[in-house]
Amino acid sequence: MENTNKIRIAVDAMGGDFAPGNEIEGIKLVYDANIEKDLEIVILGDETSIKNKLDSLNFHNKNISIIPTTETITMHDNPVAAVKQKRNSSMIKSIELLKEKKVDGFISAGNTGAMLTTSTLILGRLNGISRPSIGTMLPTTKPYPVLIMDAGATLDLQPRFLYEYAIMGSIYYREVMKIDNPTVGLLNVGEEESKGTSQLIETYNLLKSNPKINFVGNIEGRDILQGKTNLVICDGYTGNVVLKLSESLFYVLKDKMKAYAGSSIIHKIKAGIAAPILKEAVAGFNYEIYGGVPLLGVNGVVIIGHGSSSPVAIKNMIIAAITSIKNNICQKIEMAVNADKNE
Amino acid sequence: MENTNKIRIAVDAMGGDFAPGNEIEGIKLVYDANIEKDLEIVILGDETSIKNKLDSLNFHNKNISIIPTTETITMHDNPVAAVKQKRNSSMIKSIELLKEKKVDGFISAGNTGAMLTTSTLILGRLNGISRPSIGTMLPTTKPYPVLIMDAGATLDLQPRFLYEYAIMGSIYYREVMKIDNPTVGLLNVGEEESKGTSQLIETYNLLKSNPKINFVGNIEGRDILQGKTNLVICDGYTGNVVLKLSESLFYVLKDKMKAYAGSSIIHKIKAGIAAPILKEAVAGFNYEIYGGVPLLGVNGVVIIGHGSSSPVAIKNMIIAAITSIKNNICQKIEMAVNADKNE
Repeated sequence: MENTNKIRIAVDAMGGDFAPGNEIEGIKLVYDANIEKDLEIVILGDETSIKNKLDSLNFHNKNISIIPTTETITMHDNPVAAVKQKRNSSMIKSIELLKEKKVDGFISAGNTGAMLTTSTLILGRLNGISRPSIGTMLPTTKPYPVLIMDAGATLDLQPRFLYEYAIMGSIYYREVMKIDNPTVGLLNVGEEESKGTSQLIETYNLLKSNPKINFVGNIEGRDILQGKTNLVICDGYTGNVVLKLSESLFYVLKDKMKAYAGSSIIHKIKAGIAAPILKEAVAGFNYEIYGGVPLLGVNGVVIIGHGSSSPVAIKNMIIAAITSIKNNICQKIEMAVNADKNE
Repeated sequence: MENTNKIRIAVDAMGGDFAPGNEIEGIKLVYDANIEKDLEIVILGDETSIKNKLDSLNFHNKNISIIPTTETITMHDNPVAAVKQKRNSSMIKSIELLKEKKVDGFISAGNTGAMLTTSTLILGRLNGISRPSIGTMLPTTKPYPVLIMDAGATLDLQPRFLYEYAIMGSIYYREVMKIDNPTVGLLNVGEEESKGTSQLIETYNLLKSNPKINFVGNIEGRDILQGKTNLVICDGYTGNVVLKLSESLFYVLKDKMKAYAGSSIIHKIKAGIAAPILKEAVAGFNYEIYGGVPLLGVNGVVIIGHGSSSPVAIKNMIIAAITSIKNNICQKIEMAVNADKNE
């Protein structure tokens, strides 16, 4: 792992609900698609399970190595306790590799709270960043997704935190989505500058003060999925509710269709015709496309996945990590947030 | 207006986007359906427009009277300025009638912020209530809607405020939806008791402490439209975002279907089949059903409508007002919130 020309990524094979199967199938998809020439992947987890899965796929590649670990941080583990008690877990060992610069990035579909806590404690924050943030991509009715920041890392609404989310998120969106000057909206209860609490008004003024942020003003709940802005800035409590409410849309519709189909034979036949069309129409609302979410503001590239991540989602998480590494996201965030401080 | 056996309701005829037409058509629907035997309605607004509309509908009823007003509070008026400068507006005159007990309830599809400000200033708060709250009904995949409180009246998250929302909302839901012991969920980022900020944890403990609140614990964004609880308690900032995001789902879906239809001739034909079925399936997501939202915690029955309220929505707002009056919502709230204080 010393060759620094390579891109080296650690994959937590024990993270998701279908670990290590989906993780390893996802890695295979990355190599099958030949996404990055000089890519080295380090898989951390239970050695036997990992080898069995690699064998069953007949997937062997000289750029893949395994680091065996004996513990697993589960979805039920308390994040703070886990970081102390499960030092030999695949998650903590991966983050330590990143800290020691033996890898350039890390992905996991494991416990989000534990990812946040362990990454922040072990890697530390980037110089000038007050709080790390989890940014979540959601599909919109426009060609581009919306990046919600924060989606649950820091629940308090502090103007300086939200201002930093806008700086970090703008850089991430620009590099990953290849959009030059992404637009930023502040989530509020109305569009006027005077709307909201004193903290929201203070945030508005901070966002407006930095010409490097493409701030278009306040936006409302109805604007999020209609893609009015590329980024939506809010506190982590509200962002988390927005994310989970949006994710439930597909299930809400499915239930509504089921109730409709159950009301008569004619409705059942009609619903049978409509269901697959509806499914295709809302296919964009599929978390797999964006794969994972970045943990921004810590000193290293960390991508967090949904517990139920599919192989395609894992593949897209690895691609997001590669893009972040190649575009020096961390250095760019540090420069941007400190440039502003020195002005 | 002296006969106290009657139910007397003031209707702001100048409130909505289609005023006074929809307001008067809505009133006609109430009388046509013979919803309440002894119902007296006082219409406030521009006398000529109101009379013209009544004439055009050939709608004349001895229980309807007009109080002419010369000013209108628009959607663009600043609420605090409006209450000072537009004393002869239909909205302020209506609230004054309610204050003077010349009517028992008041409905308007006008400026929500102005409704909140003028009602609170003129009527005052119920004894024991810290902040008035706007409760919004949203459809769910279950047979019953969910009542979100607060949906934008008070943006700060203060445990005592949220606790009072739960008391007020439980009474309103019970009386209006005829559900004995409605369930209450606290909107949070996870289900565990320890989740969220210190304010959310304090709110959890307050809600748990009152056996008259049917508190089932923390719920998440995904639970709202899936109807996990009858009430969802949160701060007004988050509630407002939830409301507007949910309202946008229908339009998001419509846009998605349009994009799908546009992608090929086959898709266009398929979408043509699916569209009306989909429309029928999501018909429950129609704000008209619940008509308006109650302003709870002020000293009087006040129902606020969407600016685009249809005649059916106006009718349902009048019904909500009648139900609130007949079931003594205000007295019940005052008793419940003070019983708890004396315990």
